[in-house]
Amino acid sequence: MSEAVLYDTLWTNARLATMMPGGVPYGAIEDGALAARDGEIAWIGPRAELPDAPERLAARVIDAGGRWITPGLIDPHTHVIFGGDRVGDFERRVAGQNYVAAASGGSGIAHTVATTRATDEDTLYRGAARRLRTMIANGTTTVEIKSGYGLDVETELRLLRVARRLGDELCITVRTTYLGAHVVPPEYADRRDEYLDLVCEQMLPRVARERLADAVDVFCDTIAFSVAETARVLETAQRLGLAVKLHADQIADTGATALAARYHALSADHVEHASEDGIAALAAAGTVAVLLPGAYYYLRETLKPPVAELRAHGVPMALATDCNPGTSPVLTLPTILNMACVLFGLTPQESVAGATRNAARALGLHDRGELRTGARCDLALWDAASPAELCYWLGASACAGVVVAGEPL
Amino acid sequence: MSEAVLYDTLWTNARLATMMPGGVPYGAIEDGALAARDGEIAWIGPRAELPDAPERLAARVIDAGGRWITPGLIDPHTHVIFGGDRVGDFERRVAGQNYVAAASGGSGIAHTVATTRATDEDTLYRGAARRLRTMIANGTTTVEIKSGYGLDVETELRLLRVARRLGDELCITVRTTYLGAHVVPPEYADRRDEYLDLVCEQMLPRVARERLADAVDVFCDTIAFSVAETARVLETAQRLGLAVKLHADQIADTGATALAARYHALSADHVEHASEDGIAALAAAGTVAVLLPGAYYYLRETLKPPVAELRAHGVPMALATDCNPGTSPVLTLPTILNMACVLFGLTPQESVAGATRNAARALGLHDRGELRTGARCDLALWDAASPAELCYWLGASACAGVVVAGEPL
Repeated sequence: MSEAVLYDTLWTNARLATMMPGGVPYGAIEDGALAARDGEIAWIGPRAELPDAPERLAARVIDAGGRWITPGLIDPHTHVIFGGDRVGDFERRVAGQNYVAAASGGSGIAHTVATTRATDEDTLYRGAARRLRTMIANGTTTVEIKSGYGLDVETELRLLRVARRLGDELCITVRTTYLGAHVVPPEYADRRDEYLDLVCEQMLPRVARERLADAVDVFCDTIAFSVAETARVLETAQRLGLAVKLHADQIADTGATALAARYHALSADHVEHASEDGIAALAAAGTVAVLLPGAYYYLRETLKPPVAELRAHGVPMALATDCNPGTSPVLTLPTILNMACVLFGLTPQESVAGATRNAARALGLHDRGELRTGARCDLALWDAASPAELCYWLGASACAGVVVAGEPL
Repeated sequence: MSEAVLYDTLWTNARLATMMPGGVPYGAIEDGALAARDGEIAWIGPRAELPDAPERLAARVIDAGGRWITPGLIDPHTHVIFGGDRVGDFERRVAGQNYVAAASGGSGIAHTVATTRATDEDTLYRGAARRLRTMIANGTTTVEIKSGYGLDVETELRLLRVARRLGDELCITVRTTYLGAHVVPPEYADRRDEYLDLVCEQMLPRVARERLADAVDVFCDTIAFSVAETARVLETAQRLGLAVKLHADQIADTGATALAARYHALSADHVEHASEDGIAALAAAGTVAVLLPGAYYYLRETLKPPVAELRAHGVPMALATDCNPGTSPVLTLPTILNMACVLFGLTPQESVAGATRNAARALGLHDRGELRTGARCDLALWDAASPAELCYWLGASACAGVVVAGEPL
């Protein structure tokens, strides 16, 4: 007969990177313990302060073997569901053609739209599931997935349904984003307003009614939608009760970052060309800047996002894989943590915060991204000597496993 | 009773990137078969040309499931055995300090020398074995390993013994390189010539006598050894019958590339600052240029190696991880293939050749790096739609397994 215990699972002999701000780096607890009950963190602290012997506290005790434990990583910007690939674009770009030229030609996003439309739901699911499993094996437990390679009613809905199914079947949290306003599809090339009518009058109401999207995104840039066009989509989304976010100022400063702030977007993503006014507006609005070093790397960009200004204004910086076949075929967040340090000059601590606490905020999720009592018990375990080491290696991560809502996956 | 069969193992339903030059890209055979006997490739060609039914030809028939098969990848430049790590250097460099400054301070190679000297043989073995297993899981079947973090007799020999043991126990080919002339160790800072005496009069003869090294390398650059000092080591090595190679012109053009050619080195590695004369000399000598994009990436270098000139002169280009704790903590060759394309502008075909046929040549190995009859049957299998895709993804490779001397590992 076992007595009643307080906790479902207790991890001991763990080094905890709680990511709680204001104290020691990474909010670290060097010889820590962490207990879960009903999927949430119910106790966390130094092992020496546990109120009783571990086996009297929890039904299951797991020795973490001195491993570092971080919050499960959160990837707040991906396009992980698509048909085909863009290896051809990659080869052309290596040979010197740039992204705007590629996107304007017969390749680019338009190519992926064509291959995605031609791919059935199960095939889309299998391709994305394979990529997501790699992400999970490298520490990710929450991922945002955008539509935007359909650009017609049927395919956009198919992409969002696949995204919901990925969350259900892979047992991680998937947050879905409708990105019908990714680019103007070829068949509407001379009828931009009619495409926006389709987005605002047909697709968005249906997406909202069927609860297929948690948020709405628009690619607001010179090769996609203008500020005025973007504002129309954002207003429609907000009328329908949907959170908004933007692809902002990746290619040029079009004022998209300030627009994101004006609509109190969850996040403004890319922001390489954001103006200082735009950054000040983000800070005032509480909007997160999501930095995407994968695209910067693949496109051989030379203008970094304005990291110093974002710091100076206190804008939270999140990081994402931007996993997509064209500009960021990157499969793991640790790769992105490395690039954020090496290419953008973030500190390792800023990088880890960018894929945990700030990434949670970029998705409007207040129950995760930090290790504290009451938070969802999503964890990632690491065979590493320090949290900084998560950012240091390239090619394979030290992830030793993840825990979702208190259960090892 | 089974009849006698011709082959030990036959792979069918394979797409073969033979890397044989002169024909179709990658020397590809789209619907191919490959047979091994006694560890060597005994038959290769289109499946339709197999002389008999597969099960009558081989004791074991393996359906490759339409996967691409390349030669097992070859990593011709690593420093994979070391004690400690250099995460501290990484954090300082991210914050703005450059490599030369770091190397001149209390950190850099000198730090790794101190931690390596303090690490026992089994601990060194376990750390390197863990990294090598990651390499193997990502396609590598032959790897060069350098000493150079010992810089005293006892530790240099320990590193080379660990390298030999890694080859024996992990069942891949390890080629060992003595790099006693990596930098001048701190205790000889004011007695450079005495350190070179130690290298040439004590370490090199002992390394040769105990057959611990297959080649000798020198770091010939502004922060390491001069051309004259390097020449002394190379002459000693050649008198002892050892092949030579150089770390050449990474930081400045010191004439090291031409020196490598003058001594008919197997390879000149780095060569970012190599002069056109140096490149012409490499071509004349038949010396391979080993490009190391990992260090270029981590150090945020802006001067690429002279790829156009190397092509123009017909110098074979190989690629390597340069896996080391300071300037290239990169664990997998596919990461390097990607960087070679994105950062250096190599084509995917040049990149794959750089980690197969040209890498074999950089190690003086004439029995591998291509799929042809008579070659050693070292293979890597890939869940990829094309060989170019090996260069396209970052974060996790599509390697589905390797074969060493005809046996799946």
